[in-house]
Amino acid sequence: MGKVIDFQTDPSRYRHWRIAYNGEIAHLYMDVDESGGLFEGYELKLNSYDLGVDIELADIVQRLRFEHPEVKAIVLQSGKERVFCAGANIRMLGGATHAHKVNFCKFTNETRNALEAAGAESGQHYLCAIKGACAGGGYELALACDYIILTDDGASNVALPEVPLLAVLPGTGGLTRVTDKRKVRRDLADVFCSTEEGVKGKRAKEWRLVDEVAPNSKFAETIAARAREFAARSNRPIDAKGVTLAPLQRTFSDNGVAYSTVEVEIDRNARLAKITIAGPEDDTPASMEALSTQGAAGWTLRAARELDDAILHLRNNEFEIGLLVFRTQGDPALVAAHEKLLIDNRNHWLANEILLLWKRVLKRIDLTSRSLVALIEPGSCFAGPLAELAFAVDRSYMAEGEFDGDNRAIAALALTEGNFGLYPMSNGLTRLQTRFLGEPERTEAARTKIGAALEAEEAKSLGLVTFAFDDVDWEDEVRIFLEERASFSPDAMTGMEANLRFAGPETMETRIFGRLTAWQNWIFQRPNAVGESGALKRYGTGLRGEFDRRRV
Amino acid sequence: MGKVIDFQTDPSRYRHWRIAYNGEIAHLYMDVDESGGLFEGYELKLNSYDLGVDIELADIVQRLRFEHPEVKAIVLQSGKERVFCAGANIRMLGGATHAHKVNFCKFTNETRNALEAAGAESGQHYLCAIKGACAGGGYELALACDYIILTDDGASNVALPEVPLLAVLPGTGGLTRVTDKRKVRRDLADVFCSTEEGVKGKRAKEWRLVDEVAPNSKFAETIAARAREFAARSNRPIDAKGVTLAPLQRTFSDNGVAYSTVEVEIDRNARLAKITIAGPEDDTPASMEALSTQGAAGWTLRAARELDDAILHLRNNEFEIGLLVFRTQGDPALVAAHEKLLIDNRNHWLANEILLLWKRVLKRIDLTSRSLVALIEPGSCFAGPLAELAFAVDRSYMAEGEFDGDNRAIAALALTEGNFGLYPMSNGLTRLQTRFLGEPERTEAARTKIGAALEAEEAKSLGLVTFAFDDVDWEDEVRIFLEERASFSPDAMTGMEANLRFAGPETMETRIFGRLTAWQNWIFQRPNAVGESGALKRYGTGLRGEFDRRRV
Repeated sequence: MGKVIDFQTDPSRYRHWRIAYNGEIAHLYMDVDESGGLFEGYELKLNSYDLGVDIELADIVQRLRFEHPEVKAIVLQSGKERVFCAGANIRMLGGATHAHKVNFCKFTNETRNALEAAGAESGQHYLCAIKGACAGGGYELALACDYIILTDDGASNVALPEVPLLAVLPGTGGLTRVTDKRKVRRDLADVFCSTEEGVKGKRAKEWRLVDEVAPNSKFAETIAARAREFAARSNRPIDAKGVTLAPLQRTFSDNGVAYSTVEVEIDRNARLAKITIAGPEDDTPASMEALSTQGAAGWTLRAARELDDAILHLRNNEFEIGLLVFRTQGDPALVAAHEKLLIDNRNHWLANEILLLWKRVLKRIDLTSRSLVALIEPGSCFAGPLAELAFAVDRSYMAEGEFDGDNRAIAALALTEGNFGLYPMSNGLTRLQTRFLGEPERTEAARTKIGAALEAEEAKSLGLVTFAFDDVDWEDEVRIFLEERASFSPDAMTGMEANLRFAGPETMETRIFGRLTAWQNWIFQRPNAVGESGALKRYGTGLRGEFDRRRV
Repeated sequence: MGKVIDFQTDPSRYRHWRIAYNGEIAHLYMDVDESGGLFEGYELKLNSYDLGVDIELADIVQRLRFEHPEVKAIVLQSGKERVFCAGANIRMLGGATHAHKVNFCKFTNETRNALEAAGAESGQHYLCAIKGACAGGGYELALACDYIILTDDGASNVALPEVPLLAVLPGTGGLTRVTDKRKVRRDLADVFCSTEEGVKGKRAKEWRLVDEVAPNSKFAETIAARAREFAARSNRPIDAKGVTLAPLQRTFSDNGVAYSTVEVEIDRNARLAKITIAGPEDDTPASMEALSTQGAAGWTLRAARELDDAILHLRNNEFEIGLLVFRTQGDPALVAAHEKLLIDNRNHWLANEILLLWKRVLKRIDLTSRSLVALIEPGSCFAGPLAELAFAVDRSYMAEGEFDGDNRAIAALALTEGNFGLYPMSNGLTRLQTRFLGEPERTEAARTKIGAALEAEEAKSLGLVTFAFDDVDWEDEVRIFLEERASFSPDAMTGMEANLRFAGPETMETRIFGRLTAWQNWIFQRPNAVGESGALKRYGTGLRGEFDRRRV
């Protein structure tokens, strides 16, 4: 699978989804093109999906939020006759590398979370209307919706057949959402998850697997009624005009990719990528009207989209790059000013959506299994959302004082109100709260510094950066660290970082990315699943998996 | 490693620990016998440990609670001159099977949790006094103590060198306790966990890695003062007489082991073990005095110890047994009466200790990575602590009504007050609360049934059992289920059960057994650690590990 995976798409290129807009309610049809797989070697039968299908879905969810402010409820259903969705394509999984499987699951998980977030944060509620077989990843897609309706036609069902059929877990949040979102009784969950044929009709409702069962004759009208109810609860604006998400301007080269605000430079020998984000060059738009007119060209929206795409590109196409080094260049006061317009206008749907996008992008960085470093250098602009990068990384290095021959501004961090609540991590805390879990008074001390240009000494004494070095030591210290980090086992780094980054409370999200994903990754290494006689490999051959019977 | 591992020991057989009792303060010395390894092929140099060393520690912690009610603080230190503890023995780990590594970590984790529980629940506080190198599992042992004092002699240090040195995680709770118990700032934790040489002196205190640093000259007096302070906070009784934990009466056979109250029958073809617990035969002791006189012979204490040993035996010696089938036989009213004496006398240290032991044993069952089933048959006594077994299992089958030709009492479950708070799971909830997370009113409904003999129909309608079958269907239904379960991939079962059993809140314990353990298990499968050129395998050869550089 050496092909470069592109996470950018647009409606003109969709092969697997159709969407119909009818005022406040949209109808989204999953209608996967069998021959439209991202790679060779499998057909996407029975509405099964691969990463390409999910990239389109993620694009739809994103565009709904920005381009269709009027939509309040989305009814998700199948575009095919007798099947809702058979889940992730098994042949694709069977043939994929470990790294592709893991990153495929991570991205689909993030898309499911985005679906939930759209309802919870943004008043765009997804309702899932199931007719036909809804199995595995298909049911996990339903689980991510705010409401599930199942038709009671004697055949339609929901199922998580992964364990009995494939000897792997339902890895896109299925187990966690069954126990923690739908709160299915654990013994019933055990029965459900070990039953290939799933559960249908009233029992699915009794077991809390779906919210409602409707007879076939009343299915359409029930869905319509529920969609109207969800729409009525939404506070989406009525007359707002959407912002078109124009194609990103990107130039790929052998060793990186350049966007308008983000530059990725890959050093393959050092196994690292430098990601440099340029702050805004223009003044803050005078009003939300002006910002709306800028649309996707405005710095805050553009930089978030570009950063997101850069991270996804590195995650899925550059497996040997173990370190992401975040740098910024620009005017911190201008970054803060652009953010302030959004904060001051949070009641405006577009300001809100841009802030929420930054929240998602920053979460995606937290969840990226590469070592993350911030270099806070002269001329940098780690302020507001960009300051979050300095708190998202595993450690940060800050340049202290003037650097010989460097006429850029002395390095300074700048906190804004945004750093104290707008960009929570998956654990529900801000990055500063997580950082100062043992010393909550430090979060309060940092709050008193909002607006100040915090140079290295002060930033370090506030606990905001890990190390500060002057220009005598800077280069050596940073180089030694980067070299050392690159010498460690990538797997040990992945495990260590996954544990150290998320102190404090757990949420459904952290459980999905922590517990569930880690177990799935383990299983994705085990011969019982992926060996030549494993169940995943043998699927479709007519042979069952042969298992090593030892428990561990 | 085909040898049978025995979890029973006593002070006369200790090879690795010494303990000195001085009234309310005990001094525990780790002094590992290099040649006392549990298996061939490694020497336990530098106070490194294997499972055998930890079995002794677990025995000490248990005996302190029962045999030494007067002890309020335990000072844990090294019996060797220049090293505190080098952690788990690397050669042992390098040579061990995956299953042994995983179960070794699980048991040591449970022992660390027992250390913490002794302080939190029982007023026996562990203080760790570190002189010399304290690395890896050595520091994880310190982390499980209530207080850590480090001598500031310029050499003594604490370290978690697993990641840089061995390419594995600190797997005995280290990462989790660093972030969530000691709340070390995440970037400092990152530095600490990727630094082979660790941290010493004042920096260890500044980084929250230890509670106090004392100069060598004042080390002994500081420890003594802190131990007195912890002892002063304890509410352990002053004049109580301990209960000696007499050796368990056991008879091992090829296909099981028989205790006085617990019988384990292994069916190797079916890959299952039936564990039958016999309820008490004698009346409840008339008073706590009478119970104290019975000592370890009393049913509640005896049954808990026997059940615990049976579980440990199956976990560590019977890897191909994938299903544990719990059965009981006896008088449920008598089980409830024996428990009631303890509940009515919770202020009595011994009653409290017996209840807390049941809590630990039941948690050990929750954490056992085998499929768990309860068969609630005629003549059974699933009441109080034994009813918890029916809620700990993945699913339960209950016999409905009279069984032809069976003159035992009709199967009935009996709830007691104990089921509503005395035996919380690792997630901090009772098993009933966890079970009814989505329907908390059901927990309240169950509470109104305390004391009633709940036959199958009622138990099922209350949601307390998964299935109920009469004697026409019972045998086939149970057989079909057991056969089906045994046919599934053991790995998929492990992952599924680890996810479904612990809905609801997360605690440090669930994070250790969920997130941390799952990532460690994954790493324990990865060639970067355990392959021929992996860091764990190569340790001690003078060669560094060679790594596949791809991130996943």
